Amino acid sequence: MARRTGRRPGNPATREAILDAARATFGQRGYDGSTIRAIAAAAGVDPALVHHYFGSKDQLFLAAMQAPFDPREVLPAVLAGDRAGLGERIVRTFLSVWDSPAGTAGIAMLRSAVSNEWTARLLREFVTIHVLRPILDHVDVDPAEVPLRGSLLASQLVGLAVMRHVIRLEPIATADPEVLVAAIAPTIGRYLTAPL
Amino acid sequence: MARRTGRRPGNPATREAILDAARATFGQRGYDGSTIRAIAAAAGVDPALVHHYFGSKDQLFLAAMQAPFDPREVLPAVLAGDRAGLGERIVRTFLSVWDSPAGTAGIAMLRSAVSNEWTARLLREFVTIHVLRPILDHVDVDPAEVPLRGSLLASQLVGLAVMRHVIRLEPIATADPEVLVAAIAPTIGRYLTAPL
Repeated sequence: MARRTGRRPGNPATREAILDAARATFGQRGYDGSTIRAIAAAAGVDPALVHHYFGSKDQLFLAAMQAPFDPREVLPAVLAGDRAGLGERIVRTFLSVWDSPAGTAGIAMLRSAVSNEWTARLLREFVTIHVLRPILDHVDVDPAEVPLRGSLLASQLVGLAVMRHVIRLEPIATADPEVLVAAIAPTIGRYLTAPL
Repeated sequence: MARRTGRRPGNPATREAILDAARATFGQRGYDGSTIRAIAAAAGVDPALVHHYFGSKDQLFLAAMQAPFDPREVLPAVLAGDRAGLGERIVRTFLSVWDSPAGTAGIAMLRSAVSNEWTARLLREFVTIHVLRPILDHVDVDPAEVPLRGSLLASQLVGLAVMRHVIRLEPIATADPEVLVAAIAPTIGRYLTAPL
């Protein structure tokens, strides 16, 4: 018998019911407005069961999104190190995730988001909470400017992913990652901290 | 009886056959590798009929793409004026097209391109030939760098359109266009002419 590690997978039908309820709740109320309690109620199960199957609200959200990777696994290395190199580390890490097998799932998520308002909303939430907030918490700028800086940064990175992996415009489609890091890192650095 | 102006619409079935043949030919051979003669042959009509219905290869291409606007109508104003203001004029014009009714058709084209390799190819051709080439012909840079500069520029602009109109991440989704012009124009200027 295979040894089980980590969380118990649980009853597949119950898991699916919880994931469906999570997608509906996150979609309607957003990430911040959703609670494990509300999701459990929508799924008709006890909140303790949701925690038991999925852990934290964060983990449930990533599972509901079928997120191709967990930003918390890569962000610490991006945020460690000097401020001057932050733009470079962001672009290099972004490219390495999109160039990896996780990128295929990322493309599927992007395809779904452009044709489905519900997925678009979850993607907004995902990007804002799991990528942009941790990065912008790390730089010292006027808090009032944080949302604009975050969405500018996202616009360049999403455009890079779309052009490299979806539209596949050359030479960006096949360029060496370091060529793109050198060209795009100053843009990211400017969006993070330069006067707007 | 309504007065007819411009080109004769022609027989609808013949028009559609020519447009289908044009899409297939542009999709297989690209814009530069396609000729009116080859498209006419694929449609089983005389090349003169293609010219009669659609005019030039450029015009046929725009019709085949169902292009929401003709870049040749807006680019002259973008390219007129001083070099220092070129980035601003590009972002301002791009936003005004995407914020107009043509933007709705642009979103449909983007949706189609992310789920359909054939549309993605036509969109690459469209962007390269009708938008990037005329802009980059206008700046004085090493010709070897033109493709990379063009695709970097496209990555920022497409990312802006995706974030403002598809994913709708705030505040970029509803920001005053001039706020975005001020923030993004330096990026475009840098991709056009700064050392990479």
